[in-house]
Amino acid sequence: MPRYKATIQYDGTNYAGFQRQTNARSIQETIETVLTRLNGGQSVVIHPSGRTDSGVHALGQVIHFDLPQARDTEKLRFALDTQCPSDISVSQVESVSDTFHARYLATEKTYHYYVDTSVYRSPFKRLYSAHYTFTLDLDKMRQAAQDIVGTHDFTVFCAVGSPVEDKTRTVHEVVIEELSPTELRFVFRGNGFLYKMVRLLMGTLLRIGAGKLPIDTIQTALKTQDKKIIGPTAHPEGLFLVEVRYDEEKNEI
Amino acid sequence: MPRYKATIQYDGTNYAGFQRQTNARSIQETIETVLTRLNGGQSVVIHPSGRTDSGVHALGQVIHFDLPQARDTEKLRFALDTQCPSDISVSQVESVSDTFHARYLATEKTYHYYVDTSVYRSPFKRLYSAHYTFTLDLDKMRQAAQDIVGTHDFTVFCAVGSPVEDKTRTVHEVVIEELSPTELRFVFRGNGFLYKMVRLLMGTLLRIGAGKLPIDTIQTALKTQDKKIIGPTAHPEGLFLVEVRYDEEKNEI
Repeated sequence: MPRYKATIQYDGTNYAGFQRQTNARSIQETIETVLTRLNGGQSVVIHPSGRTDSGVHALGQVIHFDLPQARDTEKLRFALDTQCPSDISVSQVESVSDTFHARYLATEKTYHYYVDTSVYRSPFKRLYSAHYTFTLDLDKMRQAAQDIVGTHDFTVFCAVGSPVEDKTRTVHEVVIEELSPTELRFVFRGNGFLYKMVRLLMGTLLRIGAGKLPIDTIQTALKTQDKKIIGPTAHPEGLFLVEVRYDEEKNEI
Repeated sequence: MPRYKATIQYDGTNYAGFQRQTNARSIQETIETVLTRLNGGQSVVIHPSGRTDSGVHALGQVIHFDLPQARDTEKLRFALDTQCPSDISVSQVESVSDTFHARYLATEKTYHYYVDTSVYRSPFKRLYSAHYTFTLDLDKMRQAAQDIVGTHDFTVFCAVGSPVEDKTRTVHEVVIEELSPTELRFVFRGNGFLYKMVRLLMGTLLRIGAGKLPIDTIQTALKTQDKKIIGPTAHPEGLFLVEVRYDEEKNEI
């Protein structure tokens, strides 16, 4: 069956996360319902590059799915985009080889995490950034962020319950950008991220920046794997899955 | 009774507009409910600088209200801000003379209108800008916008049903800013705006920019007061009430 790769954006606010669930609205169910309708009622299953949690957003999530017939990709994109609710959009659909897999073949992911440091919470940022009012020492956070970079066993920064066995990941880059005096963007780029890993790293970085945890917390946690010394899971609404990369030569038709 | 002036922000998405209504959630009812609670159950009525419609946002709406006792303004601001839902915030509360009136004494208002010209609709802009995909001639729009500036009888750009009698307003400035290749901001600054006036002007400017209406449409409409020649009411979600100014000497205690 012809396989398609689609790049999608979504505002995660009104969904219980990506993954299909019994009693809650999910991104997966919403897109599969549209695809199944476009497929004449024959059910279609989509596979994402990875799940995102409730409230987490995507600017460049990648999915793949199979359809029984070959389709014009731009027509398919348009139909999918216009029939999805307005908080999900489809920016690209491509034909790919039937060996392509959105999850297994992803080689790099980029996440952004937005922090609003305004004194007053903003009605316009509340769904798209974490509000954090403690004064942050950016130099400290930038220094601590370097401990994340490299290849490490990130078990200590993985939420309990993840079925993944190998918890070694390589983080290429953690950059902290000051977009405005009250708006920070944290960029995480790596070959993969474990369940809640970015949010646990963010919770720890914020506490380090606020002077509530020692600057070497991340280094020590990676060494000792002691979950008790790290920060809490940061709020989901600041997190965006921005880009998923693939080794193009392997995947395209 | 001591009078207070408050500056508020709100995301208008989940409200049927500012004004209290029988069967729908309004900004007014939401804030009055909190103020009445803070006032020991004695009902408090708020007066805005002007109403905003369903879906319209505010970054700097101004209201006034009276309370039987004098209050510490920062404590009052904090209580009001934290007890309002997260899509309404209160950035300032000031003591004002009992002759202050948020509507009658306003001397200048500024509105912003955001237009998203991306080919694909964005889940993140859908509630905060109007999506318009026709190619826009900015020079044409800037030229037409100059016909708005000045003192005119704006009856033709006022929605039917407004109880206001004198429909003469002075517009000081209409500026079109290119925030990014796909994001336009229209700035309207004047001594006052009639019911749906900014959205009717926007609907007309967009049609002029898209080449669907002659460049002198605004000039002709102001001269002939012919409602049939102007554009439609532009979508509410692109509109933000940004600032309301008062003659400070007259109003402060």
